[in-house]
Order: sequence, then C-alpha cells, then structure tokens
Amino acid sequence: MTINIKKKYINVGLIGYGTVGKGVLKILEKNKKIVLRKIGKPINIKSICDLRPIDKPELYVKNFRNIIRDPEIDLVVELIGGYEPARTIIIESLKAGKNVVTANKAVLARYWDQIFTVAQDCQRSIYYEASVGGVIPVIQGLSEGLASDEIFEIKGILNGTTNFILSEMTRHSISYDSALKSAQAAGFAEADPSFDVNGIDSANKLAILSSLAWGSWIKVKNISIKGIEDLDVEDILITKNFRYDIKLIGCAQKTKHGIDLSVQPCLVNHNHAFATVENEYNAVMITGKDSGDVLFYGKGAGQQPAASAVVSDIINLSKFIVTNTAGIVPDVIYDKKKKIKIIAPGKSRASYYLRFTVVDKPGVLAKISGILGRFKISVTSLLQQDTSNRDCVKIIIITHETYRENIEKALKQIDATRSIVKSKTVKFKIEI
Amino acid sequence: MTINIKKKYINVGLIGYGTVGKGVLKILEKNKKIVLRKIGKPINIKSICDLRPIDKPELYVKNFRNIIRDPEIDLVVELIGGYEPARTIIIESLKAGKNVVTANKAVLARYWDQIFTVAQDCQRSIYYEASVGGVIPVIQGLSEGLASDEIFEIKGILNGTTNFILSEMTRHSISYDSALKSAQAAGFAEADPSFDVNGIDSANKLAILSSLAWGSWIKVKNISIKGIEDLDVEDILITKNFRYDIKLIGCAQKTKHGIDLSVQPCLVNHNHAFATVENEYNAVMITGKDSGDVLFYGKGAGQQPAASAVVSDIINLSKFIVTNTAGIVPDVIYDKKKKIKIIAPGKSRASYYLRFTVVDKPGVLAKISGILGRFKISVTSLLQQDTSNRDCVKIIIITHETYRENIEKALKQIDATRSIVKSKTVKFKIEI
Repeated sequence: MTINIKKKYINVGLIGYGTVGKGVLKILEKNKKIVLRKIGKPINIKSICDLRPIDKPELYVKNFRNIIRDPEIDLVVELIGGYEPARTIIIESLKAGKNVVTANKAVLARYWDQIFTVAQDCQRSIYYEASVGGVIPVIQGLSEGLASDEIFEIKGILNGTTNFILSEMTRHSISYDSALKSAQAAGFAEADPSFDVNGIDSANKLAILSSLAWGSWIKVKNISIKGIEDLDVEDILITKNFRYDIKLIGCAQKTKHGIDLSVQPCLVNHNHAFATVENEYNAVMITGKDSGDVLFYGKGAGQQPAASAVVSDIINLSKFIVTNTAGIVPDVIYDKKKKIKIIAPGKSRASYYLRFTVVDKPGVLAKISGILGRFKISVTSLLQQDTSNRDCVKIIIITHETYRENIEKALKQIDATRSIVKSKTVKFKIEI
Repeated sequence: MTINIKKKYINVGLIGYGTVGKGVLKILEKNKKIVLRKIGKPINIKSICDLRPIDKPELYVKNFRNIIRDPEIDLVVELIGGYEPARTIIIESLKAGKNVVTANKAVLARYWDQIFTVAQDCQRSIYYEASVGGVIPVIQGLSEGLASDEIFEIKGILNGTTNFILSEMTRHSISYDSALKSAQAAGFAEADPSFDVNGIDSANKLAILSSLAWGSWIKVKNISIKGIEDLDVEDILITKNFRYDIKLIGCAQKTKHGIDLSVQPCLVNHNHAFATVENEYNAVMITGKDSGDVLFYGKGAGQQPAASAVVSDIINLSKFIVTNTAGIVPDVIYDKKKKIKIIAPGKSRASYYLRFTVVDKPGVLAKISGILGRFKISVTSLLQQDTSNRDCVKIIIITHETYRENIEKALKQIDATRSIVKSKTVKFKIEI
C-alpha cells in the first residue's frame, strides 16, 4: 500500500483510549496551530478503538482491524500497553503499510527483534519516545543526538512510580507501605503497582535503551533485577548520614568482559545530579567516549507528560509521512547477526553499603571483618550503632569496589553464623 | 542542482580545519563502522578548506567556492566561526543545493532570518546541534522532542568557559583573574575570552533557542546582557552561606506582557540541578505547558564534545541525503510575519541579592530599608557583617520578587547617598 501524499490531513487511528489516549486528543485539539506550523498539514483523528464505547461515538470502532484495514489511515497510535494484542496491532499495522507510534515499553522490550525486522522489511517507521522516560526525549537523544559516539554506559532513574515512593519515604521518613499509599493517592501508582515496584518496568526501559545503544537486541532476561518492595526506611535514614539517597537505578555498562546490566535500589551521592531527581521525575545519564556524560531529566509519569511525548512523536513522524519518506531509512538499525556479550551477574563490580544486625558482644566485628577479608572485600567506612533492642547492634559498612559474587558469598557465610547475626544482612550497590 | 542518490559515498566538504574540524576527521575515521551502520553508506571527506595549507594536502582547497561549486559534494560543514565569510559560505552552499552543518552560533543568531529563508526557498537542510550546548542534543530536544508543547521558559548555563571560571572561583575562593588563567591553562578559555565572559556567546545561544521555541526570529539585541568580568569572589563566598552558587544564566521567559530575555550572573539554589553543573558543563532547562521541566546536561566546551555533536549532525543529515529528502520539510519553521512581543527590561520580575557596603553608624539600615520600601521592595533575609575596615559594614539583603526598574531606581538613590555608601552596591538576580 502506498500513502497518498496529496491528502489534506494526516489521518490517525488511535487504539487505546485511556488516560494517555485522552491526553493525546486534548493536546492535539489545544495545540492545533503548533501542530499545523510544524507539519504543514493538520492531524485528523479518524478513528478510536477501545474495549468499551467512548464519549466520541462518531470516531469509535470496536475492532482494531478496522483501523489497520482503513486505507485512509496513515498512522496507528497504539496506547493499550501490555503484550497482546499490542504486538499484533503493531505488526499488522506495519505490514498494512501504516507507520506506528507507541508508548509500550513491554511489547518493545519483548518483541524488539520481530518489530524492527518487520518495520525494516515493510519500510515503515515506528516511533516510541514515550516508552522510556516519559516526556524526556532520550530515545532520540541516544539514537540521533549521540549518533556518532561509542556508548560506554547508560544509567537511569527510569520509573516515576518508584521514584515517587522513594522520595516520599526519604522526605517523611515513612515506610514503603505508607509511601505507596501516598503515590496511589497522588495518581502516580496503579492499584496494582507490581511491574513498577518490582523493577520490571525499569528493566524493559533499560533493555530498549541498551538495544539502541549497542545495535543489538538486549533482552530483559539478561538484566539482574531487584525492586523496592523490601526496602526498609531505616536504610534510607542511615544512608542520609553518609550523604546518600536511595534510588532505583537501571544501569547498563560496557566492560571489557561484556555488558553488565542491572536494575536495583542503589545509593546515590548527594552531590550527583540524580540526587536532585525527586517525585515522578526520571533521569537518564548516557556516557559516550567523545561526549562524556550527557544527562536528560524530566517527568517520567503522569497523563500530560506521556501524552505530550506521544504527540511529539506523531508530529515528527507525520513530517516524513507528508514527504512519503517515513521508514525508508530505518530508525533502528538492528543487526540480527551481531552478538553482544553479556557479563555474568557475579562478575559485576561495585562498592556496597552493608547493614548487619548482630548481637552485642566482643569479637563480632572481628568475625565479620574476617569473613569479608577472606573474600577480598575491603572496607572504606564503618559505623556501629546501638538499637532499641539492648542485645543488638547495627554495623554499617561501606566497601571498596568488589565482585558481586564475592559480596554474595561473604554475606551468605556471615548470615549463616546464627550465633552472631540477628537478621538478614541488607546490601545496596553504591552507584555514584 | 539535484543530488545523485546512487553515489557510493556521502561527499563532505569541510570549511575550517581548526580544533573542532580536526576532531571531526578523527571521529569519522575512528567510528567508521558506527557511521556506516547508521547511514548505510560511508562518509567521505572530499575537500578541506582552510586559510593555510593543512597536513592533508590531497584534500586541501584554498578557496571555499571550490567546495561550494563542486557538484559531487553533498554536504558542506562550516566550522570557521564568526560572521563572515561564514554567512556567505552557508548562504551560497544552500543556493548551490548543498546541505549544511554548522557549529556557528554567532552567524545563526545574527542572520537567522536570511539563513532559514534561503534554506526553505532552496529546500535544503541546515543542522546546527553543536552551536548550542556543545554535545547536548538540545536543539533537537526542543524542536522535535518537545514539538507538541507550548514552551513557557528556557533557562540555561550556556557557556562552558564562564562556568569553568565560576567553578574555579567557587572551589578555590580565588579572584576572577586567577580563575580565568586556570581556564586558559586547562584549554577552556581562549587567549581573548571576551565573547565568552561578556555574555555575548550565551546570548547568541539563547537567541537561537528562543527563536526555535517561539517560531519567530528573536534577536540578540532584545536580550539584556551582563557578563562575569566584574564578579567579586566575595559575593560567591557570601552567597554560599545562603546555600546559593553564582552561575551565568541565560533565561527566556514567556510572560503575559511579552518575552523576557536576559543573560546575567544569577544565584542558583544548592538544591537545584543547575548547582551540580560544574566546570565546562552546560545545562538547559526547558519548561513546557504539558511537559513540565525537561533538563539537558553535558559538556559545553572541548574538542571532542563539539566534534562529536558535529559528526552526529553529519550522520543524521546524511540519512536524508541518502533518500534525497533533506530539506523537503523545513527544519526550522520560521514565520516572518509573526511578531513576538518582547518585554521592556525594566518590567522583568525577580528576587534579588543585594550587597551594600556602608559606613558603620546608627540609622544607616533604616535609611536603606526606607528607600527600598519606597520602591515597594520587600526583604526576605538580611545579614549584617563586619569588614576588615573598621568604619565599614556589609549589609546583605535578599528581596522578594520585584520589578527590575524598581531595584535599579532604589539602588541609584541609595548609591547616591554618599554620606552612608562606601562603594557601589552589588546586585544579582536570584534565578532558582
């Protein structure tokens, strides 16, 4: 199918009419003049598909295939989220000669291979700026702004919900459960926040950024993932004294042994720009060989920022639809044959924060430091604190850089020493 | 002239073979594979023009018109800086059917109108990401990433040299002159640093960002400009105690009375992300109606970051040259008829830091606060400090938001009161 460039409008079919979909319509209506100035032609929402009838019955279609099969539609906007039928919608749209805008990180991370192969074969474009970092134009920044550079590292606060929860915990010294309730009340956490708080959402976004940066599909299963559900506010309070904040960080690093990928709560120094990233904000730091550190920062959650990013994608893609050139040069250059080596999780290197809860008797510290020493873990700071329980003390240790497997083996051995350890040792990576 | 898309290379003519030009060649050579993967065809530097013969005699041409007239050249990269012959090179290249990449903020800010009119008429593209913010992809972020949004404000640390000098002054408590020498030694300040330190360079960049954001040519002469040459390290030390850093900030703000534009040293709160922007780094914060605050941050000076941004532009523009579509949709939509109202400088509103040096006798404070009160300036903090001179005291005042003309009139009156004022009162805008 070829697209007729003489038409008066860019015709858009919108699939998924939830919060973001409604926001998209609102912005397109409100900013009509801006859109017209940028594209030269107006955007026309021709059809909207949703599970239930909507407040605009003249646009409503029940079956998404009616949008995909409509020869007048140039651009399909997929905003239903999840894996299916999102994948089917994207693939069938591309095959039907449509260009696609999506905000769906889950489907992109899981079907990167299939989606970009089909897009390349069909010479159609898929834009997905809203899938990572909300309103932050980091996809374009990475794939075009830093196009010339060899990327060493990508590091980010990639999930607005968890960052809001951590900010609440830090600001008010409250528990994870209370902070989650605040986030839900403020509209920044779903009734079921699982995919946000368990780190999967951040991992999807990290997989997308890494795949882009290194020109090969990097899968979520290659990312070592830990969420924030078990986070004790106590560690937030203690680390504050060491001038650290705890943030959920997605990190992808090119090392000489392969790419090291993780999502986990980490300590971030108060001097670092990440420490100023509060509430629903996201930030991504990309380090290139020639560029050095480049940081992007903006709202990672909320109706308006997400809808705004989707509309920017619609505008930018429409410019190519007008000239009938969308998809001729593939946006994502993806080489199936290129194999990227992923580092074994144990071989990841970092400094750690450790909190031991131990019995208050002589020799305990010697025991702990003995085991750490055996695994070649050296200590940079140490703090002993009394607890409300008279028989117990807390020992806080900040380590030098070490292999993750060494930390894990050492803690396993320490935690198995029942005569001294009162509860499982807490550990966090120190990111910056 | 039409460009032959069947050619095997993208042929580039480079005009200006200084630090950045040499860096461009180095990156193109080193990252050949990355470039090929992104464009599908290799980049070939066909000719290099410079005032003096270069170390690659086989590529050297003395007259830039030999590059512009060469039918095989697709892309002209202008890296000589300044107004002329840069303007002539850009205009003649566009008219000869070439696409252009430039890092020249001065020529863009002064000839915005002419350059983009010619580009639009000739249907050719001009990319200029390296002209603002060094390696930071803020031009694309503003014009595409935030394409859908109504922009309220642009605020930035736009000059690497001045930021390096201010960082040195803050870090080592040294004078402006000493810090300038460090910056020169570190390669971040020219032998003649005038255009950096007097704020003109920042103003050029602010004019470019503002013209893009509001779709109309905003001229440098509309920007109220103050540099950092007169900055006394004393004020850096005092403001530190109030938890502020002093940064040279370019700010463009849409108010209901028009756009308010300034470049001046400002106080920035330690909690703000700008306070973490040190040395040669730049940062730009763009505030949109739907997007909220979006921040971009990265190296604003240095050979590799600038060259890296130029090569990214070459790559991104080459993708369109390959498909013969460069310039069909104008990159800068510029409407000559659109008139943008600029606010009168006196009507700009801000809070201020004021440092008075006055005689140490009763009634002085009453006199000062009386005059401030008469101009409706109210005070939020006040600090009185002794000086090494026994007859003198310093009075530091932080004001509430007020009109700039009120501050100026009040200070004029206070400074004219010779019986109490020992030296000219120092004032800084409090930005964040």
